[in-house]
Amino acid sequence: MKAEIISIGTELLLGEITDTNAVYISKLLALYGVNVYKRLTVGDNFERLEKMLEREYETIDIIITTGGLGPTADDLSKETACKYFDVPLEFHQDICDAIRQFFENTGRTMAECNKKQAYLPKGCTVMYNRNGTAPGFILKKENKTIIMLPGPPREMIPMFEEYVIPFLQKTSGKTIFTKNILTYGISESSLDERIRDIESFCPDVTYATYAGTGCVRVRLAASGVKEDCERSLDKAIKKTVDIIGKEYIYGIDVPDMQTALVHLLAQKGYTISTAESCTGGFISKMITDVSGAGKVIECGICSYSSRIKNAVLKVSEDTLSMHGAVSAETAKEMASGIRRIASSDIGVSVTGLAGPDGDEGKPVGLVYIGISSKLGTYAKEFNFCSGRKRSRSEIRILSANSALALAINEASRL
Amino acid sequence: MKAEIISIGTELLLGEITDTNAVYISKLLALYGVNVYKRLTVGDNFERLEKMLEREYETIDIIITTGGLGPTADDLSKETACKYFDVPLEFHQDICDAIRQFFENTGRTMAECNKKQAYLPKGCTVMYNRNGTAPGFILKKENKTIIMLPGPPREMIPMFEEYVIPFLQKTSGKTIFTKNILTYGISESSLDERIRDIESFCPDVTYATYAGTGCVRVRLAASGVKEDCERSLDKAIKKTVDIIGKEYIYGIDVPDMQTALVHLLAQKGYTISTAESCTGGFISKMITDVSGAGKVIECGICSYSSRIKNAVLKVSEDTLSMHGAVSAETAKEMASGIRRIASSDIGVSVTGLAGPDGDEGKPVGLVYIGISSKLGTYAKEFNFCSGRKRSRSEIRILSANSALALAINEASRL
Repeated sequence: MKAEIISIGTELLLGEITDTNAVYISKLLALYGVNVYKRLTVGDNFERLEKMLEREYETIDIIITTGGLGPTADDLSKETACKYFDVPLEFHQDICDAIRQFFENTGRTMAECNKKQAYLPKGCTVMYNRNGTAPGFILKKENKTIIMLPGPPREMIPMFEEYVIPFLQKTSGKTIFTKNILTYGISESSLDERIRDIESFCPDVTYATYAGTGCVRVRLAASGVKEDCERSLDKAIKKTVDIIGKEYIYGIDVPDMQTALVHLLAQKGYTISTAESCTGGFISKMITDVSGAGKVIECGICSYSSRIKNAVLKVSEDTLSMHGAVSAETAKEMASGIRRIASSDIGVSVTGLAGPDGDEGKPVGLVYIGISSKLGTYAKEFNFCSGRKRSRSEIRILSANSALALAINEASRL
Repeated sequence: MKAEIISIGTELLLGEITDTNAVYISKLLALYGVNVYKRLTVGDNFERLEKMLEREYETIDIIITTGGLGPTADDLSKETACKYFDVPLEFHQDICDAIRQFFENTGRTMAECNKKQAYLPKGCTVMYNRNGTAPGFILKKENKTIIMLPGPPREMIPMFEEYVIPFLQKTSGKTIFTKNILTYGISESSLDERIRDIESFCPDVTYATYAGTGCVRVRLAASGVKEDCERSLDKAIKKTVDIIGKEYIYGIDVPDMQTALVHLLAQKGYTISTAESCTGGFISKMITDVSGAGKVIECGICSYSSRIKNAVLKVSEDTLSMHGAVSAETAKEMASGIRRIASSDIGVSVTGLAGPDGDEGKPVGLVYIGISSKLGTYAKEFNFCSGRKRSRSEIRILSANSALALAINEASRL
C-alpha cells in the first residue's frame, strides 16, 4: 500500500514552524507496513493542492493531509477533496454544537465563520476533534482513501490515535505491538552490528534504532495476535538485552533516562540529590521533568563558583586549590557534600568545562561526575571532545545524560 | 522567482529524523523574496527523483536539494541532475585530496567508495564541504538552477552560508538586513494589531512575528544598501518599541531571554541566584546555557521539598505551615534566602504546582515568583491554567520564562 503525506500551510513553506506532524505520521505508517511514497508541503492554495491531487491519484492508495481545515477563507482543503471525489459538502449540526460548546468552555463566543468547520464531505467517516474546533474525516471511494487532519499537533495526534490507527489496523490487517530498549554509552553502529547477529533468532520481530545524544533507543515490533506478539517480543527482549550487555541498558519501555531513574528510585524507596557545576541545574531540571519526582528528589544545588562549592557544599579549600574546581577530588566532595546536606541515599555531582573556553590548562569537554552512596564515593572522568569538536550545549547534554546513567547504575546496585 | 526544496532520504520518509534543513532553507529564501512553491521529501530513489525533476522543470526557477550525496550506491542525486541538465560528471582531484585529508585528520582511512564524492557535474560551481566529505554544487543552465547540498545540518548550514547566500544576494539583487525584538507577556495577536498600525510609517521595513511559549519575536527586515537599511531599521525599531510598550520588551537582537538577562547583568556588573521549587533547576539551567554565565550566577538551589526550603533556604516553619509551600510568602522568603546565601544582587524564586495534581486545595498552574534585591522583596502570582488546560512541561516553561522576565525587569531598575 502506497501513501503520500501532504502538509498544508503557508507558514510551513515560509519556515516559520517545523513540520513535526509529518514525522509522527511517517513513523506510524512505516510500522503498519504502509510505504510512504513521498511527502509534500504546500501553501494554503486551492489550485496547487488540486493539481497535486490530480497528479498523485494514479500511483497512491492513501493520501493523508494535515492543516488547511481552519475557519478562514483560505482554508480550502475540504472543498478540494470534495471536488476531487465528486461529492458535496454536508452540514453536521452535532459538530456545529460541539464547536460552539468548545468556545463557551473557554469563555468565548463562536464566530460565524467557524460554522464552515461543521461542513464535511458526504459519506465520510467523521473524526471528532476533542482538542480544538476543526473536525477531520476519512473519505473512501473505490480503492482510494483521503484522510484529512487538523494542523496543530495537540489536535492532530489524539485524532490520529483515536481514528486513523484503528483504520490502519483494519486496512493492513495488522495489529502492531512494540517494546523499546533504552541504551546509553554504546554507539548506534555497534548496536546495529550486535542486533544483526540475533535477527535470525527472532524472525517475527523487526528492529529499528533511534539515536539521541549519547542514548540510542532500540524499537522491537511484532504484528499479529496479541498473545503471540507479546511472547515473541518478550523472547526477543531477553535475547537483545543479553547481546547488547546489561551495562548499556537503562530501561525497557520508558521514554527517557530521567524517567527510568525516577521510577527505579521510587520503586526501591531511595532518594537522590544533585550538585551541579557545568550543567547548572540541568540534571535536577531533567529529574523534576518527571511527574512524581517529588518522592525521590528533595534538593539540588547549582554551585557555579568555587566560593559556593566551598561555602555551601563544603568542598575543602585545600581540594579546590590543590586539584582545581574541575577535578575528580572536587567531584567526589561535591557528591558527598550534597548527599549530606539533603540526607539523600544518592548524591550525584558534575564539574567540568562546557566551553567555549578551557580553564586551569584543562581542555573543553573535560568533565568529572561524582557519585556518593552508602556503597562509597567515586568520580569518573569524561573527555567529551576527544577526537571531535562539540558545542557547549552538546557537552552539557552528554554530561547530564552520563550523570543520569551513573545514578541509575548506583541505584540498581543499592 | 519560484523555488522548490527537495529533501532526499529514505530515513526522512520513515520518520526517523526530522527535516530541519527544509525549515532553515525556507526561512532564508523567504527573506530574499524567493517564493517557495512547495517542498518535497523523497527517498533515495533514482527514478522517482528523476520524475519529480521532469514534472517541476516548467514551473520552477530554482531547485534546492539536500541529501543523497553520500558515497554509497543508492546516493544518486548528482547523476539525476546530470542526466537532467545533460552534462557529464567530472573528477576533481582537489576534492578527492580534501576528502582523504578529512579522514586522516580524524585518524581514519578513506574508503574507495568515497572517491565517488569527488565527481561533480561539468561546469558547476563547486561548494566545498569544510565539515564533512560530500561537496555540494550550483549548476545553471539557461534560466534554471539546481543547487545540491549534503544532508547533515552541520555540513549543510555552513555551506549554505558560504555559497548559497551570496548566490541569492546576487540573483535577487538584494542584501537583507534584519533586527529582532524579543517580547514577553504580550500575545502574538495583540502584537500583530499594534504593528499593523505602524507599518505605513516604516514602508521600507517588513515585519514578521514568531511565537514561543509566552515569548514572541518580532523580526524587522529591510533590503538594499547597508547604510540605508540600518537607518530604516533603527527608525523602525524605535517606533516599534514605543508602540509595543517597553514593559513587554526584553531585548533587541538577542536569541532568547536568558541571553538578554546574562548580558544585562554582565553589563551592569550584577549577580543573580535562583531558588526553584516546581521548575526544579530549569531557570539556573537556562541561565547557564549562556556562555559567560559564570560571571553573573554563582549559585542556584532546587528546593523541591518543604524540608529543604526550611533547612537550606531558611524559609520559616511558620510561613510554611501558615501559608503553605505554594504561597507568596514562601516565594518571598525563598528569594531573600537565596540572595543572602549566595550574596548576590538579585534573588529569584519559583514555587508552584506544575501538576499533574494540585495540592493543599490549590489548583495546578498556580505559581508564585519571588524577586529580592536592594529595592525590596516581592512575589507575583500567576495562574497559568486559568481558562485552559496546560501540561506540566508548559507550566514549567511559562514559570521559568516569567521568572526570567521579572529578573530582567529588576536588573534594569537596579
